[in-house]
Amino acid sequence: MSDLSLAIVGLGTIARAQHLPAIAATEGITLTAVASRNARLDGVSNYTEIEELLESEDDVQAVSLCTPPQGRFEQAMAVLRADCHLMLEKPPGATLSELELLAAEANARSLTIFATWHSREAAAVDQARDWLADRNIHATHIDWAEDVRKWHPGQDWIWQPGGLGVFDPGINALSILTKVLPDPVRLTGADLHIPENRQTPIAAELTMDAGHPVTARLDWRQQGAELWQISFDTDAGVAVLDQGGARFTVDGETVAQGENAEYARLYARFRDLVSTGDSDLDLSPLRLVADAFLTGHHHTVPAFLD
Amino acid sequence: MSDLSLAIVGLGTIARAQHLPAIAATEGITLTAVASRNARLDGVSNYTEIEELLESEDDVQAVSLCTPPQGRFEQAMAVLRADCHLMLEKPPGATLSELELLAAEANARSLTIFATWHSREAAAVDQARDWLADRNIHATHIDWAEDVRKWHPGQDWIWQPGGLGVFDPGINALSILTKVLPDPVRLTGADLHIPENRQTPIAAELTMDAGHPVTARLDWRQQGAELWQISFDTDAGVAVLDQGGARFTVDGETVAQGENAEYARLYARFRDLVSTGDSDLDLSPLRLVADAFLTGHHHTVPAFLD
Repeated sequence: MSDLSLAIVGLGTIARAQHLPAIAATEGITLTAVASRNARLDGVSNYTEIEELLESEDDVQAVSLCTPPQGRFEQAMAVLRADCHLMLEKPPGATLSELELLAAEANARSLTIFATWHSREAAAVDQARDWLADRNIHATHIDWAEDVRKWHPGQDWIWQPGGLGVFDPGINALSILTKVLPDPVRLTGADLHIPENRQTPIAAELTMDAGHPVTARLDWRQQGAELWQISFDTDAGVAVLDQGGARFTVDGETVAQGENAEYARLYARFRDLVSTGDSDLDLSPLRLVADAFLTGHHHTVPAFLD
Repeated sequence: MSDLSLAIVGLGTIARAQHLPAIAATEGITLTAVASRNARLDGVSNYTEIEELLESEDDVQAVSLCTPPQGRFEQAMAVLRADCHLMLEKPPGATLSELELLAAEANARSLTIFATWHSREAAAVDQARDWLADRNIHATHIDWAEDVRKWHPGQDWIWQPGGLGVFDPGINALSILTKVLPDPVRLTGADLHIPENRQTPIAAELTMDAGHPVTARLDWRQQGAELWQISFDTDAGVAVLDQGGARFTVDGETVAQGENAEYARLYARFRDLVSTGDSDLDLSPLRLVADAFLTGHHHTVPAFLD
């Protein structure tokens, strides 16, 4: 079988740091075109607009969107209407209703749509899920704290309406949570801390239920080292998935640890979904975020100056 | 066939004003039990707690929940786990994730679950939908304005997180909109006006897309007569669905008008859904509200004192 001919749209930091090397490392996929307003890539066809790419490149079979979620709907719909398979960076869209429309369009055209959650592919996540499947979990707690100035310098869109604020990294934790817990997760309460000069939260606390109590603390005001950790209090000890999913320990003993190869796994999975004609559009992490905004208690906190 | 034996939970204003007379007027349904913390009803079995009702009343086949959305999930799940069909007042829940769980439970047990949107049953809504199906619509505009002091006096829960604020009536307009327009509706922007002493909006403006532009103005600061109206600018004239759906006019001429019998139609539909083993859980109105909270621009407005 010949390789899947892929185009990517958006050639920003995440595309260069993660998507390009992952595509190069994935058998069965060849990058043939790029659309980007501000950048070019050697060795492939280059376009400034996605519409121009889709019109000109008859052989492109699949498109990966690496653009910010606001305004991505029109691009995604254009990809599907050009009869190309679609892969979406997280979060897969700005709203839940737009994703319903994309799902319906992909289904009507028998195209693959893949909403990716890169943190689910971290090295120790599968082992954590398998270990937890056989245990009684009494409580789960998420600590997801990082310094926004270090990890998102000058990214103004995350503070705009729809930019999700601290949920932009926090949704990574929720994507792991909804993968590793045996029962579905329901939001029961949220406290959102919003700087007086911004539109999205800089910190949040969540309460959830998954057959047992789940709590989360998301915080962008962290100083020093980041903390990307989920702890499980179980009848077989305290299990901890930390380093963003790269390490899993039980009572301090390492059960699984590895180098993260998240994006390579995403592209291999996309290739396999296309080959079997399947889709993967699990919206549960974004639905939990929407529920937090829908029911959350707003607290105004001091202005944030980037 | 014998009548469907029904229980209702919550005996507040909406239950007494709408549900009880509608049930009495619906062939094929008999009210046999009530659970209410603060009220009793003559002629049926009375309980203070839903759990007690479900344990004691072996013959009850279906339950209608008339309680506020916050905290309704546990009641709804108890109904399904007692193998009873479930009818939900609008909005059907406090969060989207809880409704996914209820849908899965009802499906696994082959039970009917019916998320009601009473405004969809207003007298002229079906005629509006049928008329619009054959026209090109250029623009749609919602005006949904009422005096909160008149229509929701002392209802503190609507100002609490999750209480939806002006979306509590506004979701009625969205439920009509998503029924009468031929294409699905996607939210593209929202401005939320939140009193400085409250948690939920007193007014909102929305922009949406349904193959044509859709705008909405929801306002609880209305003085004088309420305005519950949706206008459609079409190639066959200006159509207006007003009086909350009771009247439909085209270029000023009345096409359809009637007395609203919304709740009687809901109970007849619930009876029919149960008899055919079907469910109706259209979450699109609540999804639009969640999207408005997720992506909306917050504006602080003067304090609201009830």
